[in-house]
Amino acid sequence: MALFSRNEFLERIAKTKASMAEKEIEILVVCDPANMNYLTGYDGWSFYVPQAVLVIDDQEEPVWIGRMMDVNGARHTTFINEENMIGYPEDYIQTDVKHPMNFMGDLIKEKGWGNKSVGVETDAYYYTARSDAALKQSLGRERLLDANLLVNWVRLVKSDAEIDIMKQAGKIAENVMATALDHLRPGTRECDAVAAVYQAQITGTKDFGGDYPSIVPMMPTGEKTSAPHLTWTDDPYQPNQAVNLELAACRHRYHCPIARTAFIGGTPPEKLQRLADITVEGLNLTLDAIEPGMTGEAVEKVWREHIGRHGFEKESRIGYAMGLNYPPDWGEHTASLRPGDKTVLAPNMTFHMILGMWMDDFGFECSESFRVTETGVETFAKFDRKLFVIN
Amino acid sequence: MALFSRNEFLERIAKTKASMAEKEIEILVVCDPANMNYLTGYDGWSFYVPQAVLVIDDQEEPVWIGRMMDVNGARHTTFINEENMIGYPEDYIQTDVKHPMNFMGDLIKEKGWGNKSVGVETDAYYYTARSDAALKQSLGRERLLDANLLVNWVRLVKSDAEIDIMKQAGKIAENVMATALDHLRPGTRECDAVAAVYQAQITGTKDFGGDYPSIVPMMPTGEKTSAPHLTWTDDPYQPNQAVNLELAACRHRYHCPIARTAFIGGTPPEKLQRLADITVEGLNLTLDAIEPGMTGEAVEKVWREHIGRHGFEKESRIGYAMGLNYPPDWGEHTASLRPGDKTVLAPNMTFHMILGMWMDDFGFECSESFRVTETGVETFAKFDRKLFVIN
Repeated sequence: MALFSRNEFLERIAKTKASMAEKEIEILVVCDPANMNYLTGYDGWSFYVPQAVLVIDDQEEPVWIGRMMDVNGARHTTFINEENMIGYPEDYIQTDVKHPMNFMGDLIKEKGWGNKSVGVETDAYYYTARSDAALKQSLGRERLLDANLLVNWVRLVKSDAEIDIMKQAGKIAENVMATALDHLRPGTRECDAVAAVYQAQITGTKDFGGDYPSIVPMMPTGEKTSAPHLTWTDDPYQPNQAVNLELAACRHRYHCPIARTAFIGGTPPEKLQRLADITVEGLNLTLDAIEPGMTGEAVEKVWREHIGRHGFEKESRIGYAMGLNYPPDWGEHTASLRPGDKTVLAPNMTFHMILGMWMDDFGFECSESFRVTETGVETFAKFDRKLFVIN
Repeated sequence: MALFSRNEFLERIAKTKASMAEKEIEILVVCDPANMNYLTGYDGWSFYVPQAVLVIDDQEEPVWIGRMMDVNGARHTTFINEENMIGYPEDYIQTDVKHPMNFMGDLIKEKGWGNKSVGVETDAYYYTARSDAALKQSLGRERLLDANLLVNWVRLVKSDAEIDIMKQAGKIAENVMATALDHLRPGTRECDAVAAVYQAQITGTKDFGGDYPSIVPMMPTGEKTSAPHLTWTDDPYQPNQAVNLELAACRHRYHCPIARTAFIGGTPPEKLQRLADITVEGLNLTLDAIEPGMTGEAVEKVWREHIGRHGFEKESRIGYAMGLNYPPDWGEHTASLRPGDKTVLAPNMTFHMILGMWMDDFGFECSESFRVTETGVETFAKFDRKLFVIN
């Protein structure tokens, strides 16, 4: 039973076909697991083998193609009819002599679609160089059309049904952050605090459970805060140190990331408190400034001018579109809140605005996940914006 | 501080260079995060952007190339010297106009290695079609050499230091499975049982913490057992149903998968109990039969003949090499225990043997992760092999 109505899926497919037509693509081969989910509902941890959804210009439903043993998963989760779920045999798995994309190329020809123009997601996770070569080989083509991020851009504006799920993720995110703060104590091992966060992410609320976020919890402290993608250790948290909490919650693959900074066991240095105050003030006024019709770069400018007045600069982008996704990332790789981004904000676009300010030996971050509304923004999680001091 | 000695890393690199020489590869571009870790120690959740380790035939140390902000992570986790850690600027991230693999191709030329033959991991996760095209473009090459799984095969036999870590993962795996069984109660939501499993995976033991496994916990029940890669729901577990527990523990990215089947709240059907007994007997006698010098296919034959005597068949492979890995898979994609596999088993090869028997409306599975010893096998986790009945 798919999570959304057949009508909603058909609308998504219609938008995808319109974008395909602009690029003169007649068959779109979708291998990004989030895009496969978006177009059919398919949800399973099976993306470690090649799989795809085909969108064909003159077919109403897309075609799901995956490993034979995953066809049952497609039956459970997609909106499509039985005849559009096709499993490839086990002897295509992890072998030198043939590749699942050979099966897909052969299938396209067998279905009589061999003369259609084919677009592929050239830079999607899990669409490997060999996937591309095998598909070209079976189709007898030297080149395929580049459809990278085509579906990602279609996903930019969420439906009300998607927003409802993201609000549930927001509720879980509140529990997740509260749990993290509860477990930051001097002497607590990092792994034990992270374990409690995982537990909160998956338990969810008493009304609905959580799904696995696409990125693991990041809770670095001390000198490790300068290495942003290291995970946890067995070391105990130390007093008089800041901890960056980069967390998230997920519901039905839709995310609500949330970041805060805490100071453990002591009085935070004045310079850290000042940085926190300026950053939170900037977050508040940037969120307040957002309205439909603004560009991504105009949003960033509000922030940049604010910190500039306080003598600070920040190089990296301050936000990005996010929602439905699978590991290794929850970002959608489309609109960003950064200089040069001309995306015009519209209601039900969803972003994670993350303001991380890094000085030589300390830093502070605070983030909000939100949707653009008719008049401004609505955050998915409601959680204090401040430097949390734990004593 | 890397987890292994410099000597151990240099031995791994020497083996890799020997394999490169056989294939006439002078520079190997390694993008598989597990292979990057194996050759340098690098460990971070940064594989959602392109990154690589270069192994060059005439250089002692490999070169790590990643996003500028991840160089600090390389400093924390690798054995290599500062001059061999190279960060690419932020403006290569998620843009149409250039790609991080352009940076890597340009770097290879700048370093004076532009005439060397280049091998790439054509089917590695995260080595996308566009990664391949961008690297070729910057190197001015039409073709690169196929080095798919080259390092994976080097990883097949583990060092004693690696085995020690896998034994720690085994200890955690015992706690993980015990926790799962403790939480399977009629009326408990699937998400709550899975949350407890996550908590156990990350807390580890009192002596050492756990790392995130590369695959999420799978604990399907009822009709969902026929869709093997669906994750959990909010539904409560029902009495008189079997639950398949496909779990794992991880320590420093080394895995110990473990699978069992439980029957909740009632008396298991006789046919399930019989299947369990036959499967466990087969697991025991197949493990007992293993010794160095056997092939992967010879191991599978022991199992196949056993179930054949009881009138059963099983199509898919019964095991695969595993150890160090990152999402989305813990398997190494090299040796398998299946017909046709000619890999000759040797001490310190590590496998997950998973025996899943699926009938029309019920099934049973039981697995062990083990190393081959001088005389037989040693399992990493010690856990009863049986159908668990929960009342």
